[in-house]
Amino acid sequence: MENWLPSLKTETPAQGYDLAVKLARVAVKLTQPDAAERERMRPEYAADADALIAVSQVVATHFATIAAANAYWRDGA
Amino acid sequence: MENWLPSLKTETPAQGYDLAVKLARVAVKLTQPDAAERERMRPEYAADADALIAVSQVVATHFATIAAANAYWRDGA
Amino acid sequence: MENWLPSLKTETPAQGYDLAVKLARVAVKLTQPDAAERERMRPEYAADADALIAVSQVVATHFATIAAANAYWRDGA
Amino acid sequence: MENWLPSLKTETPAQGYDLAVKLARVAVKLTQPDAAERERMRPEYAADADALIAVSQVVATHFATIAAANAYWRDGA
Amino acid sequence: MENWLPSLKTETPAQGYDLAVKLARVAVKLTQPDAAERERMRPEYAADADALIAVSQVVATHFATIAAANAYWRDGA
Amino acid sequence: MENWLPSLKTETPAQGYDLAVKLARVAVKLTQPDAAERERMRPEYAADADALIAVSQVVATHFATIAAANAYWRDGA
Repeated sequence: MENWLPSLKTETPAQGYDLAVKLARVAVKLTQPDAAERERMRPEYAADADALIAVSQVVATHFATIAAANAYWRDGA
Repeated sequence: MENWLPSLKTETPAQGYDLAVKLARVAVKLTQPDAAERERMRPEYAADADALIAVSQVVATHFATIAAANAYWRDGA
Repeated sequence: MENWLPSLKTETPAQGYDLAVKLARVAVKLTQPDAAERERMRPEYAADADALIAVSQVVATHFATIAAANAYWRDGA
Repeated sequence: MENWLPSLKTETPAQGYDLAVKLARVAVKLTQPDAAERERMRPEYAADADALIAVSQVVATHFATIAAANAYWRDGA
Repeated sequence: MENWLPSLKTETPAQGYDLAVKLARVAVKLTQPDAAERERMRPEYAADADALIAVSQVVATHFATIAAANAYWRDGA
Repeated sequence: MENWLPSLKTETPAQGYDLAVKLARVAVKLTQPDAAERERMRPEYAADADALIAVSQVVATHFATIAAANAYWRDGA
C-alpha cells in the first residue's frame, strides 16, 4: 500500500471529500486486513444508523485535514 | 455526484451550517447507497436522542471546517 | 430559519458559549423537525448522563469554532 | 450565569485545565438545569469508566481551545 | 494539584505523548476523586477494547494540543 | 519506549498515516501493558464494525496532527 496516498492535494472539494472517505477506510483495512471479514461486516453496519453516523464522523475529521491542506480550495473557489 | 460540492465558501454562517449538514449526510449516502434502506432507518434515528446528538457532532465538525474556510465570515460580520 | 445565525461574533466568551449550545441544538432540529417528538425525548436524555456528556461534547466542538472566530476574545480579555 | 466566563485567559496551564473542566460541566447544567437530578446521576457516572472517559474527552476538547487562546502559555513557559 | 502542569512544552514528541496520557487521566481523577474507586474500575476498562480505544481518542486530542504548543517539535526534528 | 517517537516528520503522507496508526496503538499499550491481554482482545474488536470505526476515528485525529506537523507535505506535493 506504499503509494496509496501520494498527496493530500485535490483539485476540488468533492475530490477532497472522496479522499477523506478513503482515508477513513484505510484504518479499518489496517486493523482488519482480512477482506472477507470486512465484507461480512459491511451489510451489518450499512444497515445500522449509529455506525453510519460514526463513519460520517471519521470522514468529517479527515475532511477537515484535507480541506486545510488545500487551503480550503481558496484560490479556485 | 461530481459537482455536488463546488466550494466551501458561503455567503452567511447559516448557509455554512446548512452545508455542514449536507456534508454530514453525504458520507452516510456513500456508505449506504441504497436510498430505500436509508429511508427505513430515518424514523429510527430521528426518534433516538443518542443518534440525534451524534449527528449534531458530525455537523459540528464539518461546521468548524467550513467556518475556517470562510475565515469565520469575518469581513461580512 | 434563514436569519438565525447572522454572525459567529459575540461580545463575551459566555455569549459565545450560549451560541455554541444553540448551534448544537439546530442540527437536532433539522434532523428531527417535529417539535413534539423532540419534547418527548427531552426528559429521557436530560436524565441520562451519557447523553448529557455527549451534548457537552458537541457544545465543546462548536465553542472551539466560535472562540477562534472571535480570536478568543483576545482584544477584550 | 452572565459573568461566569469573563475570559479564556489563565495564568497557568493548570488553571486552563480547570477552566476546561468547568466549560465541560456548564453544558450539562444548561441541558439538565435541575441540580437534584444532576446530583442523582453523579454517583452513577462517577463509577462508570466509559462515562469518565467521555468526560475526559470533552475536557480535552475544551482544553485545546483554552490552550490556543492562551497561545499555549508560550511566553510564560 | 496546583503545580501538576507547569508547561505544555516538552523536549521530545515522546515526552509530549506521555504528557497527553497524563492530561487524559487528570479529568478522570477530578470527576472521580476516590482513588479506590478508580482502582476498582481499572481492570474492567483495561480488558475492554472499546474503553481502550476511547482512552486512545482522548490521548489523541490532547496530543494534538501539545504537539501544536511545541510547534510540532519543528526546530529539533 | 523512550525513543519510539523521534519526530512527527515523515517523507510522505502515507508514512504519516502509518505513524498515526502507531500513535493510536501506543495509548492502548500504555493503558493495557499486558501483551497477552491485548492479543486476547484483538480478534474481538477486529470483528466488530463499531470498534473498527472507533479505531479509524483515533487514527484520523492523529493524522490531522501529523499532517499539520508536516505542513501537509506541501513542499513535496
